Amino acid sequence: MFVLGIDPGVSRCGYGAVEENGGRTHVVSAGVLTTSKDDPLPQRLAVLADDLRDLMTETRPDVVVVERVFFQTNVRTAMSVGQASGLALATASKLGCDIVQYTSNEVKQCVTGDGAATKDQVQRMVQSLLSLPEFPNPPDVADALALAICHLSQASYHRRVAAKA
Amino acid sequence: MFVLGIDPGVSRCGYGAVEENGGRTHVVSAGVLTTSKDDPLPQRLAVLADDLRDLMTETRPDVVVVERVFFQTNVRTAMSVGQASGLALATASKLGCDIVQYTSNEVKQCVTGDGAATKDQVQRMVQSLLSLPEFPNPPDVADALALAICHLSQASYHRRVAAKA
Repeated sequence: MFVLGIDPGVSRCGYGAVEENGGRTHVVSAGVLTTSKDDPLPQRLAVLADDLRDLMTETRPDVVVVERVFFQTNVRTAMSVGQASGLALATASKLGCDIVQYTSNEVKQCVTGDGAATKDQVQRMVQSLLSLPEFPNPPDVADALALAICHLSQASYHRRVAAKA
Repeated sequence: MFVLGIDPGVSRCGYGAVEENGGRTHVVSAGVLTTSKDDPLPQRLAVLADDLRDLMTETRPDVVVVERVFFQTNVRTAMSVGQASGLALATASKLGCDIVQYTSNEVKQCVTGDGAATKDQVQRMVQSLLSLPEFPNPPDVADALALAICHLSQASYHRRVAAKA
């Protein structure tokens, strides 16, 4: 299974493409899509939309996993995160990918065992679980990879449950 | 000047295209883009993105006016409004339109003289200002037309100020 995690944002949108094959996972690509604070918001959203489409067209994931955001958590950045997530979800749907969403707490719980883990803890666990040679930075990259890990873990669990049924 | 107002939303996205020529305004088209609550959110966003692109391609406005949303106002629908506004802004930018944003309060102030006007008051003033034969309904249509009126009013004011300078 080939999963692309997306941590939506307009200034920095993290992505992490992880493949699982025979119980082994490896990172195909990971990074951040960025837009310039000097440009008007509509132009930044248009650039992000194109970059997301190019990323998904090039990687062709089976599943796109987008963080589900709640507005109570950070009102200041909530609008731009909502706008970026809208672009990611619409683009993935147009390309025919399966789409799954998890909250930040669900991902932290899955990856670190603690739904209130710090960014540093998530980064360390992502590095360990994916045997990355380098510390995944900025946190947006680690969050995107964590989304992919979380979905692979859920899918694996559901397969095992189904096999026993 | 040909202005397209967009009141962003996923269930109902209001639009109103208003042309001003020689001090006279008339409505070119107005309505709502809708998506089905029965469909998954990513699919609804993809449909909305396509509908917005088709609308802007067909109407070819000089200026697209999108309501600027704040998340404090309605947390329940804030996420989907943010997602819809992201699609509208990105689409308008890709098509090379000028883009302006006003808050709901700015639009109400401009159209009714009261930044805290009710939906019904906005609908009545929009009907009156644009000499519409019918009451503009649902409110999303009136809100979109009000965005267009607000921008035409601002642009007219700036032209008059510039002419006197």
